[in-house]
Amino acid sequence: MERKQVVAGIDIGGTNTVFGIVDRDGHILAEDKLKTTDYAKPEVFVAALYEKIIKVMPAIGNNVEIIGFGIGAPMGNINKGTIEHPANLPWKGIIPLAEIFKKHTNLPVLVTNDANTAAVGEMIYGGAKGMKNFVVITLGTGLGSGFVVDGKLVYGHDGFAGEIGHTAIGPPGASNRDCGCGKKGCLETYVSATGIKRTMLKILADSIEPSELRKYSTEELDSKMIHDAAKNRDALAIRAFEHTGKILGFKLADVVAHTNPEAIFLFGGLALAKDMIFKPTKESLEQNLLSIYKGKVKLLQSELNTRNAAVLGASSLIWSDKKL
Amino acid sequence: MERKQVVAGIDIGGTNTVFGIVDRDGHILAEDKLKTTDYAKPEVFVAALYEKIIKVMPAIGNNVEIIGFGIGAPMGNINKGTIEHPANLPWKGIIPLAEIFKKHTNLPVLVTNDANTAAVGEMIYGGAKGMKNFVVITLGTGLGSGFVVDGKLVYGHDGFAGEIGHTAIGPPGASNRDCGCGKKGCLETYVSATGIKRTMLKILADSIEPSELRKYSTEELDSKMIHDAAKNRDALAIRAFEHTGKILGFKLADVVAHTNPEAIFLFGGLALAKDMIFKPTKESLEQNLLSIYKGKVKLLQSELNTRNAAVLGASSLIWSDKKL
Repeated sequence: MERKQVVAGIDIGGTNTVFGIVDRDGHILAEDKLKTTDYAKPEVFVAALYEKIIKVMPAIGNNVEIIGFGIGAPMGNINKGTIEHPANLPWKGIIPLAEIFKKHTNLPVLVTNDANTAAVGEMIYGGAKGMKNFVVITLGTGLGSGFVVDGKLVYGHDGFAGEIGHTAIGPPGASNRDCGCGKKGCLETYVSATGIKRTMLKILADSIEPSELRKYSTEELDSKMIHDAAKNRDALAIRAFEHTGKILGFKLADVVAHTNPEAIFLFGGLALAKDMIFKPTKESLEQNLLSIYKGKVKLLQSELNTRNAAVLGASSLIWSDKKL
Repeated sequence: MERKQVVAGIDIGGTNTVFGIVDRDGHILAEDKLKTTDYAKPEVFVAALYEKIIKVMPAIGNNVEIIGFGIGAPMGNINKGTIEHPANLPWKGIIPLAEIFKKHTNLPVLVTNDANTAAVGEMIYGGAKGMKNFVVITLGTGLGSGFVVDGKLVYGHDGFAGEIGHTAIGPPGASNRDCGCGKKGCLETYVSATGIKRTMLKILADSIEPSELRKYSTEELDSKMIHDAAKNRDALAIRAFEHTGKILGFKLADVVAHTNPEAIFLFGGLALAKDMIFKPTKESLEQNLLSIYKGKVKLLQSELNTRNAAVLGASSLIWSDKKL
């Protein structure tokens, strides 16, 4: 009997690293996690991770074979198999992750950032099945993007394509909003969980209208509270979503003018606000599109918005590489 | 003896259509042209064009075989082989150019816009030989762009990728400059032969400094005069180039954040101003790049800046399609 092929999908985060053993159909057959911050050295981290992966295998049965390791990690570079200067991980400099894995296994190890794994995941398991040209925008603490052109993820010459979270919303001077990257006015300072919070604070400062959000401190306020307030018809919270969508739509028009995708998927927390974010985004996108694109680009919610999206996305790197 | 393979490279312009018979090394073995505006119907135009192509063949010798027709045309759609609503051609609506050609020949006919033919031409005959990820920006009356990702031209889902000339330099309201496309503040209203002229007029209006350009009417002034004045150290003309480069660099930083190219090539009239345009563009590009990209992207002059660039570029569509 032929052995069933599976992939280890690994999501390395600032706090936790989670992994799952995933089959071709996206079933997670086993899963576990470890605390990223427990490991001062990446070599020790990989050894512990590899051990944990091997440990969960017997529970799945004997007739299963791992064919590769797909890893989503901040600043993951697919060309080199490295993580480069990750701001939120315990390790500094350039970490040769794929190479470190080689001490434990000779199977393929692919590393890229989480927006790219989300894009491949959408193609293999989600709403982009059968699509050749699409973009996934991940809306978390920051804004990530993964581009698929002609059925393949775009990595670029240095392995860092798709950082549109750090394109500016206007020319130098157009925005004073500081970004963690050192620039000002980056898209993610407006369109992300932290971005909408900053917009909300700005609206609370500018407006004299009442809002249930005035009772929260800057530290306390988060995007979930803004979402809840907007659902309760808080006028200022609704305005924050509208402004966020307006800026996102404006910049997505640029995305369309670059690669002319069939669809743009929104993934992550803000995308769960559905019409609240989709309506103003779509409106602004259409307003800003060149006429040849108008009415043609689908704006869709990711179908990967599950607890296990990161693990599925990471595992899909290997399936996509096999060109199944 | 094996017959030598050649391609007909055709550049359809608003006034003239020029073509050349091109070999694999980029030698133009024969050429001719016809007046686009002489033909009210595309069918009659193609018949006349095909006849002219056949007519030049005997001069090259008997041992030559045409293997395809590569065509650069405004609003050329590679996916469909059509020209769609070209503003500057005598024909309206959607013109099925490749299909019309089929009445005359069964050879491959590929159609795309001139920025895309410039990009493929750069890859086959120019400075992008051996590059897998690069972008060509054409600076003519407007601003066109062609993206190559992983060794292949990006066409997009609808065949219209790479229209960054029509991305806006800032959010709605940031610019009052009308664009021919119906939008405001498009990149090409600043960065193109007509764009720098508009910037020059703005500077002449804002400044009270003397300039040799004050003697020209709005109609008379052109980008060549601005170039000449800047070479003569006219301070306001130099400022117009600096402003143009500043805006171009700012938007090229967005391009890098999308597809992370190895190089960006500037092609066309403005690119001939060399340092005058390259220096401020490079400076602004580096200022606006995310740190992971800084110092890595080459800004280069096209090596296709010849009289025959359009014909070479068009012919390269066929060579590139053969994946030689």
